Amino acid sequence: MAGRGVAERRVLKVRDGQARRARDRLAVEEPLELRVAGRPVGVTMRTPGNDFELAIGYCISERLVAAPEDIAAVRFCAPEGQAQEYNVLTVDLRPGVPLPDPSLDRLAVTSSSCGVCGKASVEAVRVACHSVAGDPLALPSQVLAGIPDRVREAQRVFEQTGGLHAAAVCDDDGTVVCVREDVGRHNAVDKVIGWAATERRLPLAGKVLFVSGRSSFEVVQKAAVAGVPLVAAVSAPSSLAVELAEEVGITLVGFLRGRSMNVYTHPERVAVAAEPVSANPG
Amino acid sequence: MAGRGVAERRVLKVRDGQARRARDRLAVEEPLELRVAGRPVGVTMRTPGNDFELAIGYCISERLVAAPEDIAAVRFCAPEGQAQEYNVLTVDLRPGVPLPDPSLDRLAVTSSSCGVCGKASVEAVRVACHSVAGDPLALPSQVLAGIPDRVREAQRVFEQTGGLHAAAVCDDDGTVVCVREDVGRHNAVDKVIGWAATERRLPLAGKVLFVSGRSSFEVVQKAAVAGVPLVAAVSAPSSLAVELAEEVGITLVGFLRGRSMNVYTHPERVAVAAEPVSANPG
Repeated sequence: MAGRGVAERRVLKVRDGQARRARDRLAVEEPLELRVAGRPVGVTMRTPGNDFELAIGYCISERLVAAPEDIAAVRFCAPEGQAQEYNVLTVDLRPGVPLPDPSLDRLAVTSSSCGVCGKASVEAVRVACHSVAGDPLALPSQVLAGIPDRVREAQRVFEQTGGLHAAAVCDDDGTVVCVREDVGRHNAVDKVIGWAATERRLPLAGKVLFVSGRSSFEVVQKAAVAGVPLVAAVSAPSSLAVELAEEVGITLVGFLRGRSMNVYTHPERVAVAAEPVSANPG
Repeated sequence: MAGRGVAERRVLKVRDGQARRARDRLAVEEPLELRVAGRPVGVTMRTPGNDFELAIGYCISERLVAAPEDIAAVRFCAPEGQAQEYNVLTVDLRPGVPLPDPSLDRLAVTSSSCGVCGKASVEAVRVACHSVAGDPLALPSQVLAGIPDRVREAQRVFEQTGGLHAAAVCDDDGTVVCVREDVGRHNAVDKVIGWAATERRLPLAGKVLFVSGRSSFEVVQKAAVAGVPLVAAVSAPSSLAVELAEEVGITLVGFLRGRSMNVYTHPERVAVAAEPVSANPG
C-alpha cells in the first residue's frame, strides 16, 4: 500500500533487450507554495508529507523568521467558499513580530550589489548563523561509518522508489533521532530542521546532520543556521560547501561509504587512529 | 592541472579507522546572478564554465524570451570604474523585443492563484512548449544502453570530483553531440539547451537528452521547451516528471544502467524484442 509519498505506475522494463510490462513505484513530486504573513515567499517542488515541518524549517533556515517562537501557526490555505488546498501553506506570525524583510528574499539579497560572489555569500551567512566552532562534539569514525545503514533502516519509502533523498539528525552514538525524505535534497534538510524547531530542540548542538546525497553550499548553510556541528554526506561536497563549513566551524564529512570517509574541515571531532603502522616494520 | 570547474583541497581520508592526509579534488560551486535587460531574474549556484550557454539556456527554458533570436548579447557585468565581475551575467535583448513579463517569474506564476498544484503546473507548461508527440525518433534499446558510457568518456571533470552532474544531447545512433557538467542538475540541462540555441539547433527534434541523475519535473519541462522527444536518466523519475512527459509526448526512460532501463512513457520510440520466449517451451 503506497503512502502519499509514493505513486504506482505501469512501466516497460527492458532487460538485455527484452521487454516486459511491470508495475513500478515513483517518488511523488508536487509543488508547494509557501506564504508568510500572507506574502508568497517561494514555491518548492516537494514530496508531500511533513509539510508543516518543511514550512517551518524553510522559514528558519532561510532566515525569514528570527526564531521558531515567532511562528504562531501553520495552516493549509482554504480560500473562502473553496475546498482546502493542500499545495499552499500559510505561516502566521505572532502579533508584533515584524514581517519578513523583503530584502531577505534570496533574489534580493544576492542581487543587492553587483558584487555577488562566493565570498560575499559565505560572509553574509557567517554573520547570520551560529558559529559552532566551540561545539565539543567528538565521535569515533566507526560511529559515523554506521550511520548510513541506520538511516536506511529508518526510512520507509527510500527502498521502494530509489528516487528520494534523506536527511537525518543523529546523536553522537549514531542513534537516528529524526529522518525525513524528499525528492529535493534541500527540502529533506528543511524538514528535519522544522522537526527540531517543533520539538524545541534548536540549536542542534552536539548532533550530526546526515544527508544521503551531496553536500552543497545550501545544505551547509542550513546546517549552520540550525547550529549543527557536523554534516556527513554519502557523496561529494562542493568547493563552496567546504569553504562555508571551514568558516563557521562545521566538521564536513563526505563520501561516507562502507568504512571509508573523507573529512574536509575541522577533523578534530572525528576520532581516528594515526597513520597506519606497517605490520611488518622489518 | 585543475580547470575552473575543479578546486584542490587537503582532506583527511579515513579508511578502516585509519587516517591519512591527502589531496582531493572538489567540484567548484559559485553563485551566478542573471540579469535580463537590466532586471535581475535569478541567482543560481553553478559550476563556472559555459556560463553564456547557461544564461541563454535558462532564458529559453524558463521562457524569459520567446525565441533565441530575441537575445542580442550576453556579457559579464562590469560596473563603471570597477573590475569585471564574473558572477553576474547580463542578457541584452534586441531592440523592440518586449521585456520579460514579470508574471513569468517562477514565483509569480505559481502564486498567481491559490490553485497551484501539479495539474495546474503541468497544464501551464503543456500550453507553452512544443508538443513532440509527432517526433518520429526511434532507436534500439541497445543504443540507449550504450549512452551512459559514451557520455562518461566525453566528460573531463566528472571522474575527477565525483561531484558533478552531466547532461548530454545525443543523436539517434548514440553519438554524443554535446555534454555539459554542473553541480546543479538543472544547470547542466540549461547549458546544453544554451549550446543548442547558440548553434541554431533548436528545437532538438530527433535527439536524446541524457541526464546523469534523476529526472524531475523541471528536467522534463526544460526538455519539452527545447523540443526533445526522448529523455533518458540514470536514476528514477518523479511522479510529476512522468505525468508531464506523458502529456507532452516525451519518451521518458529511467534507471538506464548496464543493459537495463525502465520506459515510463511513450515506449514506441524504444525498439525492443517482445516478451522473452521460453528457451524450453516443452
